[in-house]
Amino acid sequence: MKTIRDDANEIIRRAIRHVQPDTAVQSALRRAELPETVHLVAVGKAAWQMAHAAWEELGDRIRDGLVITKYHHGKGPIGPLEIREAGHPVPDGNSFAAARRALALADGLGEGEAVLFLLSGGGSALFESPLIPEDELSDITAQLLASGADIVEMNTIRKRLSEVKGGRFARRCAPARVFSVVLSDIVGDPLDMIASGPACPDSTTCAMAEEIARRYGLRLSDRAWECLRTETPKDLDNVETVITGSVAQLCASAAQTAAELGYEPLVLTDSLTCQAREAGAFLAAMARYHSGRGRALALIAGGETVVRLTGSGLGGRNQELALSAAVGIEGLADTAVFSLGSDGTDGPTDAAGGYVDGGTAAVLRRQGRGAEAYLDDNDSYHALSACGGLIVTGPTGTNVNDLTVALIRE
Amino acid sequence: MKTIRDDANEIIRRAIRHVQPDTAVQSALRRAELPETVHLVAVGKAAWQMAHAAWEELGDRIRDGLVITKYHHGKGPIGPLEIREAGHPVPDGNSFAAARRALALADGLGEGEAVLFLLSGGGSALFESPLIPEDELSDITAQLLASGADIVEMNTIRKRLSEVKGGRFARRCAPARVFSVVLSDIVGDPLDMIASGPACPDSTTCAMAEEIARRYGLRLSDRAWECLRTETPKDLDNVETVITGSVAQLCASAAQTAAELGYEPLVLTDSLTCQAREAGAFLAAMARYHSGRGRALALIAGGETVVRLTGSGLGGRNQELALSAAVGIEGLADTAVFSLGSDGTDGPTDAAGGYVDGGTAAVLRRQGRGAEAYLDDNDSYHALSACGGLIVTGPTGTNVNDLTVALIRE
Repeated sequence: MKTIRDDANEIIRRAIRHVQPDTAVQSALRRAELPETVHLVAVGKAAWQMAHAAWEELGDRIRDGLVITKYHHGKGPIGPLEIREAGHPVPDGNSFAAARRALALADGLGEGEAVLFLLSGGGSALFESPLIPEDELSDITAQLLASGADIVEMNTIRKRLSEVKGGRFARRCAPARVFSVVLSDIVGDPLDMIASGPACPDSTTCAMAEEIARRYGLRLSDRAWECLRTETPKDLDNVETVITGSVAQLCASAAQTAAELGYEPLVLTDSLTCQAREAGAFLAAMARYHSGRGRALALIAGGETVVRLTGSGLGGRNQELALSAAVGIEGLADTAVFSLGSDGTDGPTDAAGGYVDGGTAAVLRRQGRGAEAYLDDNDSYHALSACGGLIVTGPTGTNVNDLTVALIRE
Repeated sequence: MKTIRDDANEIIRRAIRHVQPDTAVQSALRRAELPETVHLVAVGKAAWQMAHAAWEELGDRIRDGLVITKYHHGKGPIGPLEIREAGHPVPDGNSFAAARRALALADGLGEGEAVLFLLSGGGSALFESPLIPEDELSDITAQLLASGADIVEMNTIRKRLSEVKGGRFARRCAPARVFSVVLSDIVGDPLDMIASGPACPDSTTCAMAEEIARRYGLRLSDRAWECLRTETPKDLDNVETVITGSVAQLCASAAQTAAELGYEPLVLTDSLTCQAREAGAFLAAMARYHSGRGRALALIAGGETVVRLTGSGLGGRNQELALSAAVGIEGLADTAVFSLGSDGTDGPTDAAGGYVDGGTAAVLRRQGRGAEAYLDDNDSYHALSACGGLIVTGPTGTNVNDLTVALIRE
């Protein structure tokens, strides 16, 4: 007889597998209608894995191309591809050289050709070709940081100072087609934010950029002002984009596995961003309502909560969410809540997250310290450790935010 | 063409009507299989309305009985019923006299007779017959309050010092049957908490009571110790109970109206108790996920959130929840969130709650102060007032916690 914890473990195992860069790329390529041969450009912290998966899937259909990733992230040669490593989180000379190499490839493309563009987080730094001297780019970035500009404002400026950001790389590939596969690690999958959107139409305008520059009193060269007044692509009719390996897929995978295990799956959201402890309380209140109604249910949420610090214990947002839910589901039979980071880490701990059920709160109280006392001290790690509630996966090789599930058996 | 706000108003109007004491009692009586005639005992702040509704429904089938409510809460004679008013929140001589009168009625009942027992909040004080001298009862209550005992511990002691609490009134009615209709105003409908459960089997034990008395070093007479050692009823086979007018019915009514208006209703929970601002964020994240998927949906939650004070503005938990949701649903078409107190009040304001949609956050920003700034100051009232988002109903005549709904149109 399988336990509810067995079900949880199966959901976790398959969901993490589903959002691995290799699985994600292969499933995206099977959905895309690619031409017979492609050139490949892979950019980001997961570029090597993504390119390797594409090579396994497509083989000699990949004619040539390059992989641009972080130092020590290349794992060996891949077919005909050039492997380059560059600076992250601060771009360096290798970032600029790699982007120029990719632009040269783009410039050589003709009608009927195609680029398979594989993008993952970290691309903003790893893939950059500034339109102004590198020193001035560093200076403007420093001015923006000092001014208190937010990330949207900073990107509005920086896209215009780059040859590749804000859709410009994809436009440079025209008339060739671009098949863009994006491994998302940001809640809500904002395509123009992931690696500053080299193949995504830009929604910001020159007027916005100039207004920001004036508001913060940026000191800019004539060349930089000219860049701010040059528009980015607003539509790109040579690009097709598939978002893959995102938190939405993490949720979809959990829903599918839950259904196979006999639960009716209900995805609540894939953009949860509230406080961990409160999210746990809300989810527990939902589980309490649906528990005991003769219906096996899996309530699924993806996203990234935040911990409000009130103590000095050890824990992470997923462990805190789970421990908070333990209070709310106390006494419920056949009900469990778990939450974990898809990268296998949660806060400064060796756990990926936490698992609790209707008996967890009583177990802790019998041991002499209640769940609420642990929560007030943000000490979810030690609470869950004391009752066998830690989820430990080790590093998973991917990062698409967190998965939170309430399981209710009939 | 009806707007989404029209739909919200219709859901609110019908849900509040549905949980009025008179509607709630009448619907409960139609569900119950009552004998041809009954004796009636109504206790609590809503006792007069409940008894009046029963009289309208049953007329001469009510042979006799009494109504025990708070001073100035009787609104005139009802058929053959004796109307009594008593002390609340502190019981007084009239509370004791009224309970003794009800016990006399109970003692006179025989096989085949029945009591219709109508219970609402406030009954703990209004309906009391102590087994120890009144002075000692007051003294023990004061000792418990000073000791830091929690409400569960206090009730464990007090039930044993009473002739009517903890199921004892219903047992006293045996062999007559008791039809108990409970108007719940506590999240989760804990029957033994509402008016200390005169017709509800008691789950606490003598061992617990003695342990509490020893732990807090209560000074008790021999008579009081004897009471603590006397068990309360653990099952009551002459009682049938219907909970009515509860937050669960508030949610059920909202679900039904939403369905009639073309939304697929989904009750998330009827026991929401987390922080208002965080609940708004979680609900908005759910609305964001489901918005734009071609499905008209009503996400419904009942309960009672709490406000975490970080500022000094004006507002209430429902207004704060709605304003927080406004941030999360910004930009979504055909999506709205509203939240209100079923009694028509929310915090120290003249509003019952708040209504927001995908445009609310932008409206506030254009006026010069963003929703988050208002939230940081707990000033939801002025934010919603500035954008037409206040829900104002006036006092509704009932109190069964709060109703929160996200509406998503196709």
